[in-house]
Amino acid sequence: MDIEQFRRAGHEAIDRICEYYYTLQDRPVTARVEPGYLRRALPSEAPQTGENFDLITQDYEKYIMPGLTLWHHPSFFAYFPTGSTFEAVLGDLYSGSVPNPGFNWSASPASTELETVVMDWAAKMLGLDSSFRNCANVGGGVIQTTASEAALVAVVAARSRYTKQHPDVSSEKLLIYITTQTHSLGKKAGLVLGLNVRALEVTVEDNFALRGDTLRRALEDDCAAGLHPFILIGTVGTTSSGAVDCLGEIGLVLEDYPFIWLHVDAAWAGIAMVCPEYRDVCALGDINKYGDSFCTNFHKWGLVNFDCSGFWVRDRASLIDALDVTPEFLRTKHGDAGTVIDYRNWHFGLGRKFRSLKLWFVLRSFGVEGFQRYIRETVKLGNMFASLIRESTEFALVTPPSLALTVFRLEPRASPPVPLAKLNELNRVFYARVSARSDIAFTQTDLSGTFCVRMAVGATRTSEDHVKHAYEILCLEGKAALEEWQCATGEVQ
Amino acid sequence: MDIEQFRRAGHEAIDRICEYYYTLQDRPVTARVEPGYLRRALPSEAPQTGENFDLITQDYEKYIMPGLTLWHHPSFFAYFPTGSTFEAVLGDLYSGSVPNPGFNWSASPASTELETVVMDWAAKMLGLDSSFRNCANVGGGVIQTTASEAALVAVVAARSRYTKQHPDVSSEKLLIYITTQTHSLGKKAGLVLGLNVRALEVTVEDNFALRGDTLRRALEDDCAAGLHPFILIGTVGTTSSGAVDCLGEIGLVLEDYPFIWLHVDAAWAGIAMVCPEYRDVCALGDINKYGDSFCTNFHKWGLVNFDCSGFWVRDRASLIDALDVTPEFLRTKHGDAGTVIDYRNWHFGLGRKFRSLKLWFVLRSFGVEGFQRYIRETVKLGNMFASLIRESTEFALVTPPSLALTVFRLEPRASPPVPLAKLNELNRVFYARVSARSDIAFTQTDLSGTFCVRMAVGATRTSEDHVKHAYEILCLEGKAALEEWQCATGEVQ
Repeated sequence: MDIEQFRRAGHEAIDRICEYYYTLQDRPVTARVEPGYLRRALPSEAPQTGENFDLITQDYEKYIMPGLTLWHHPSFFAYFPTGSTFEAVLGDLYSGSVPNPGFNWSASPASTELETVVMDWAAKMLGLDSSFRNCANVGGGVIQTTASEAALVAVVAARSRYTKQHPDVSSEKLLIYITTQTHSLGKKAGLVLGLNVRALEVTVEDNFALRGDTLRRALEDDCAAGLHPFILIGTVGTTSSGAVDCLGEIGLVLEDYPFIWLHVDAAWAGIAMVCPEYRDVCALGDINKYGDSFCTNFHKWGLVNFDCSGFWVRDRASLIDALDVTPEFLRTKHGDAGTVIDYRNWHFGLGRKFRSLKLWFVLRSFGVEGFQRYIRETVKLGNMFASLIRESTEFALVTPPSLALTVFRLEPRASPPVPLAKLNELNRVFYARVSARSDIAFTQTDLSGTFCVRMAVGATRTSEDHVKHAYEILCLEGKAALEEWQCATGEVQ
Repeated sequence: MDIEQFRRAGHEAIDRICEYYYTLQDRPVTARVEPGYLRRALPSEAPQTGENFDLITQDYEKYIMPGLTLWHHPSFFAYFPTGSTFEAVLGDLYSGSVPNPGFNWSASPASTELETVVMDWAAKMLGLDSSFRNCANVGGGVIQTTASEAALVAVVAARSRYTKQHPDVSSEKLLIYITTQTHSLGKKAGLVLGLNVRALEVTVEDNFALRGDTLRRALEDDCAAGLHPFILIGTVGTTSSGAVDCLGEIGLVLEDYPFIWLHVDAAWAGIAMVCPEYRDVCALGDINKYGDSFCTNFHKWGLVNFDCSGFWVRDRASLIDALDVTPEFLRTKHGDAGTVIDYRNWHFGLGRKFRSLKLWFVLRSFGVEGFQRYIRETVKLGNMFASLIRESTEFALVTPPSLALTVFRLEPRASPPVPLAKLNELNRVFYARVSARSDIAFTQTDLSGTFCVRMAVGATRTSEDHVKHAYEILCLEGKAALEEWQCATGEVQ
């Protein structure tokens, strides 16, 4: 493809994307395809000779589009939102036009420098303490691919710091602390690193937040048993219910265990700290006081397209000590002099994308106020939905709403109340009905044996009407599920 | 930014990129900026209110462009090439317009399905055995971010398989085998996973390729010492000199140690297997016979923009056994039924980009013949350069050229020959002069104490003229370096 062919195909791509966004609302949210649909449709090998690009983009419309789940659809309420803005798309487009693996400063100075600058902008915008900023040359921020990678990096840095201080401890005795509500990244870190993980209990009474007492008891038990907890992954905004661990209590306990690293995973909720009124609920003061590292994903609630996971550490030396490998062919004048950041020592890979560009574009185009407006609007919509649930006679909240996340279930009022097992049965029927629809998307979850449904607002195009419509659909399917379930089980309310 | 603003900014971005590529050749290859240039130029915090997008893109031109190293410049011969094609840029643009984290099949069926299809296309195109393909449901291919991540995943899978078979072995006794020429990914895997690494010796006489005898001796020694080597990372095309480990010999030795996993890292060279005439030099037959996993980066020599690292395993169960974490909120009908691939269990993160789209675009637009043409052209240019070095009186090859990579040094003919230490001194002066230029880029390396310079061809716009011009610059700088060195040391040839 020569330059003029690219110009034509590029303009056409932009126009197609515009057309797509004009019709987004009318498209199905979830794909209605069966496993294997694409393998059956496509040839079994690459073409021998090159094909015309028009044909390729036609096939994109024909075969790929129908198989996409539209996370940016205004009626997508499943999982967590995924960032989707035109500014980020353009940032990636410019970045893709000057591809470089940016593994050290010299490999592309702008790539490294912009990342250090915008991660400081973001830190300040979220209210993170100045010790987390790059400009002080002690801590600093870096963009990781995912919160899972960020947590894994934190665990590696924590393990390295801990074993340097405790050289005689074998890795079998090391312990990663998470809670039963921690994202799968906690268990995965254990799997990947071959380390033991202990999931601390959290209770429905505490809204699934880790308490200091639970942590202290675990520490006393484990230390007495000769085990060595070296990191706690705390969460601000758990996936299932948006729970926020009691970081203040946790921090006080950890003052007695100064070798333990506190990583705060706020993958989804952290962005809300852009609004002063949500800083307390996100425990910002405690993060600043006690956190060794912090992660929030701009590619979730932060208006930036995947991947753009913000990760900050208070002591970059712990990270670099754990990850630095510098063979001769990677040595550079500035790297040797220590005057620049070589981000390859801040993550697992060597090469890395120029991802700060999209973050820069978005931060500048929206400004702090644009971020605040967006967060407030989605929380408002989340609250509106929670109110509808609260006022309904068919549904009930399972936990208090958390920012823009509501966890609820179908719960017909009855006396005596319907037992949990039966309610779970009913809600599985209900969720199966809801998830069979292609005009809306929710996610199931399980909270200590209670099967429930999550509703997370976040798509930039979601309005009050979409939320009301979602609720109407839920009422409809709830009613049908109740009938279906009563029919099948003989239950009568 | 609304849809029409995006249309305008998008068309403008495409036009800017066209303009950029028209002038690429006249731009400096390496950035002429000093550390901190961008922090000094940009504000210290994000703007409070959103800014006009025109201003942002003007600042991109003004501040970012001058700080970029242009890896796709026709006179860039440093490190290894980084893939850069318009087709890949467009693939990323379309993919960015429908952002989704694609962690399981349901999260976006097209994303998973296209990846399984194109990774099979790529496997077939490269000549990989059918056991590495997804369609057989035993092995399969997945796109990782980097070869470092691929190697790390391989080590984790290998460790998991090994420790299941040897449950009593403590992790302190486990050993990763690499060679002294293995990419930093080998040592980094050890650092990340907290495992011991042994770098086996390779010699200049063997052109820095690992021999079977060296491996056998190491195995005998380590096993006798109670250690447990569980993976060998072999390389096809080392970074420093393009060495290819003797996989046939290695495979025969490993037949006596069936628990050891053989991962073949062919990050750069592997793409050359698209040409039948380079399959032997890349040891394809042995990879197919002995390899447990294989990696080659499409984002290096494979015409696809970063990141797109192809990773294939022969037994996907080993991978999934090692990495599967499935909480309730990630359970899906198809996942539970086992009828689909959930790629989240094939890598470290949860979310993943829809990267197969750009690979599909490139594979179709170039076709197998387009890939072959490109590889052959760059090898031809590499050979041309190697011939110029071979015929010169100032320079000498340090190792035999490997595909499109030539390793050479300044080596004035003298009797008696200049001792190594002095030659190294001279070549450091020479390389310092070359790397001070902004119109060309090379990389230094060190081969068993010999300081040398690498020249890798790969940018799609590089022609014979660029290679000849590069050689002329080297001659000029070589002459000047010789004079500078003679002046400084009093050496006279």
